[in-house]
Amino acid sequence: MGIYAITGASSGIGAKTKELLIHQGHKVINIDLKDGDICVNLASQEGRQSAVDQLHTMCPDGLDGMICNAGVSGACGNLGLIISLNYFGTVAVANGVYDLLKKKHGSCVVTVSNTISQGAGRKDIVDLLNNIGDEKRILSLISSMDSTNLSVGNSLYVSTKYALARWVRRVSATWAANGVRINAVAPGNVHTAMTATMSTTAKMALNALPIPTKYGQECLMAPEEIAEVMVFLASDSARGVNGNIMFVDGGTDALLNTEKVY
Amino acid sequence: MGIYAITGASSGIGAKTKELLIHQGHKVINIDLKDGDICVNLASQEGRQSAVDQLHTMCPDGLDGMICNAGVSGACGNLGLIISLNYFGTVAVANGVYDLLKKKHGSCVVTVSNTISQGAGRKDIVDLLNNIGDEKRILSLISSMDSTNLSVGNSLYVSTKYALARWVRRVSATWAANGVRINAVAPGNVHTAMTATMSTTAKMALNALPIPTKYGQECLMAPEEIAEVMVFLASDSARGVNGNIMFVDGGTDALLNTEKVY
Repeated sequence: MGIYAITGASSGIGAKTKELLIHQGHKVINIDLKDGDICVNLASQEGRQSAVDQLHTMCPDGLDGMICNAGVSGACGNLGLIISLNYFGTVAVANGVYDLLKKKHGSCVVTVSNTISQGAGRKDIVDLLNNIGDEKRILSLISSMDSTNLSVGNSLYVSTKYALARWVRRVSATWAANGVRINAVAPGNVHTAMTATMSTTAKMALNALPIPTKYGQECLMAPEEIAEVMVFLASDSARGVNGNIMFVDGGTDALLNTEKVY
Repeated sequence: MGIYAITGASSGIGAKTKELLIHQGHKVINIDLKDGDICVNLASQEGRQSAVDQLHTMCPDGLDGMICNAGVSGACGNLGLIISLNYFGTVAVANGVYDLLKKKHGSCVVTVSNTISQGAGRKDIVDLLNNIGDEKRILSLISSMDSTNLSVGNSLYVSTKYALARWVRRVSATWAANGVRINAVAPGNVHTAMTATMSTTAKMALNALPIPTKYGQECLMAPEEIAEVMVFLASDSARGVNGNIMFVDGGTDALLNTEKVY
C-alpha cells in the first residue's frame, strides 16, 4: 500500500480522510499544530520548511499522495493566519513535496471552499496571492483591517480559497506532464469544529439555503462525504482526473448556477 | 450488492464500466442495440419505452444506479441518430427509471463529451433540446443539413452533449431533494471504437492538443479511466456529489480554461 501525507488531520474532514486511508491499508503522516505525526505551525515559513524536511526524511522513496487540508475559517479572528495558513501554507507544502510525488507518480489534493461564498472574495487580494505571492506585503496590507468584523474575515477566507483553486488549475497541466496529478475538492458547508463556532444567525442563514442532498433535514454535510472524495481523487482510480475543482456540496453549486454547464 | 442498469455497455467505456461493477459484485443490466440484456434501439420512442418497461419488470424493488452511456459520434453519418440517441434516448431512459432510483435512493450518471469542442455547438439546437424538447420538430429542422459534412455532424454532436450537461444541472436539485443524485462525466478523447474511425488528420489534430496526463505519449485516454469515475459517481462514496459535470479528461479543460476556477 502507499504512503500519504495530510495536513490538518487531527480533526474534522482531515481526520476522516486519514481514517479512510488507514482503513484501506495505507500509511498516513498527519501534519498538524497539535497531535500530529509532524507537529508544526504551517502559518510560519519555519514550520512549512520543517514539515517538508521531515517528509523528505521519512519518505525518501517518495509519496503516493499529499492532501493539503489544513485551514482556518473567516471567523478565526486572526486575518494574517487566514492568509498565511490557508494559502501560503498549502502552496509551500505542496511545492515542497512535488519531487516526492514525482518519484511515485503520486497525486496532490487541495481543499478549497465551496462556491456559495465566492462572490464575497476580494479579487485584488486573490491577484496578489496568485500573481505576486509576496506574503509579507499582503500581511502588511491587511494589518490595518478590522479583524472583529466577520465580513472582513470572510472576504479574506474566500480570497485564499479562490486563489488556491486558481493555483491548482494553473499548475495542473505542467504537473501532470511530469506524472503528478493535482485536483481540489470544493466542500459544501460541513459539520466540523470550524462550523460549530458559527453564530445562530449564520447557521440559520445556511439552513435557509438548502443543500439539495440534505433537503428538509436542516443539517450540514458530514465530514465523511468530503473525505471519501479526497481519498478517491488521491487514488489511482482517478488517474484520468486532473486540474479539477470538484464540488462536494450536495448539489449547491448546480442549484445556484444551473446554467453554468462547463 | 446492488442492481445497476447501463446503456451502451456492449463495447467501449460502457463495457469497462459494466466490468468494474460486476467485479464489485453488482448485478448489471446492459441495454444495447446488440448483445444487450435488453436489446432495443434507444433512438426510437418504442425502444426507449420498451427498455423502461423491461427495467420495471426486472427490478420491481428499484435500481441502485442508472448509467446513461450510449451515444454516437458526430462522424456517424446519421444526423437524426445523433439527436435521437444522444439526447432524447438518454433523457427518456433516465426519466423513465427515476421512480426506480427513488425506491433505492440510487443515483444516475450521464455521459457527456469533454469541453474541447464545446465552442462548436449550435446554441439554437441546444436551446430547442433543453427548452422545447420537441424531437420531431428538431429532426425536421436538421433534415436538410449535409450529413456528409463532418463539421455539421460534430456541431450536432456537441449540441446534444451540451444539452445533456445542462439537463443534468437543471434537474439535479429537485432529484436530490427526492433522494436521487445525478451527475455527469465529461470524458476526454478516449480510445474506443468510436474514435478508431477518425481520419488520420483528425487524430493528428487531437495529438496536437496534448492531454496533460498523456503528455508526450501521443495516445488517447483508456476507457477504464472514464469507467472508474462513472462507477465512483454511481456509488455511495460520492453521496455528497450532485449536479456535477466532472471532467475526466486528463486535465485538458484546466489546460484550456485555466482561469475558469469555478
